[in-house]
Amino acid sequence: MSDLKNSDPLLLTTQLYISAWLLSNRRLHNLMIKLSEEDMYREISPERNRGIYLLGHLTSTTDTMIELLGFGAKIHPELDSIFVSAPDKSGKIFPGYGILRDNWEKINEIMLEHIEAMKPEQWLEKHTSVSEDDFKKDPTRNKLNVLISRTNHQNYHLGQLALLL
Amino acid sequence: MSDLKNSDPLLLTTQLYISAWLLSNRRLHNLMIKLSEEDMYREISPERNRGIYLLGHLTSTTDTMIELLGFGAKIHPELDSIFVSAPDKSGKIFPGYGILRDNWEKINEIMLEHIEAMKPEQWLEKHTSVSEDDFKKDPTRNKLNVLISRTNHQNYHLGQLALLL
Repeated sequence: MSDLKNSDPLLLTTQLYISAWLLSNRRLHNLMIKLSEEDMYREISPERNRGIYLLGHLTSTTDTMIELLGFGAKIHPELDSIFVSAPDKSGKIFPGYGILRDNWEKINEIMLEHIEAMKPEQWLEKHTSVSEDDFKKDPTRNKLNVLISRTNHQNYHLGQLALLL
Repeated sequence: MSDLKNSDPLLLTTQLYISAWLLSNRRLHNLMIKLSEEDMYREISPERNRGIYLLGHLTSTTDTMIELLGFGAKIHPELDSIFVSAPDKSGKIFPGYGILRDNWEKINEIMLEHIEAMKPEQWLEKHTSVSEDDFKKDPTRNKLNVLISRTNHQNYHLGQLALLL
């Protein structure tokens, strides 16, 4: 990031947030490499969510970001009703672990490609689920806010998944 | 935040991040109100950290922020060797739960006071543990970066403490 030396504050601050997203994303990736399929079907704590549910939950949440950030339509909208609207052990049939891992990697690759192509000022544009009028009233409902809140969400569940190690 | 409407991008982006810190801080506060002292002495998952350790750990980490952000000396430097350098169940004697809760609230109050008094451009200043030379080479080693990384750290452990509910 040495090219940030003489750069404008918006470039610097957005890069910091992007780095924070990528860091927690990489930590999740590295954690999942260490966990077996069997580990992922264990509960993070007795009677709590299983790793596999959190994997689907994080995948679907990141998929929603693709939509909110205006990068395109969700890649796997079918995950939402299983991993976001419903709790774990809802009786809904989960995709297999290999499929979920592939979805997770693919969706994160797409996110990364788009994030890298963003210009700093685009992060201050409204996200796609807020109206022009509401955005005028509250300019914090921008794309950067989506990135920040989802980074925190990712870290929240990263702390839980780390208990499976 | 309606006064941010016509404001400069740096004010907007730093405010977004301060809000993210305060949000996870408030969530922790609200969670601890719901947890009993007995709950806090339970492990978040079998053979893992206890709630009381994580409370001390988060308190000490936030205390270190006070120093890194240039707000002053650490308020409770004695917590570091118990809750950061050492793991849980190290045999070190913990302060009582009531004392730790008071420390946590007090340190967060002090943080808030100082954060509210910061000007946006001050977030881009170097934090106190990096040299002027190293900061010139890497301007991301600023105060905003401290806030970002500690917000993520706070969310990581918030996800774990929520398992005690």
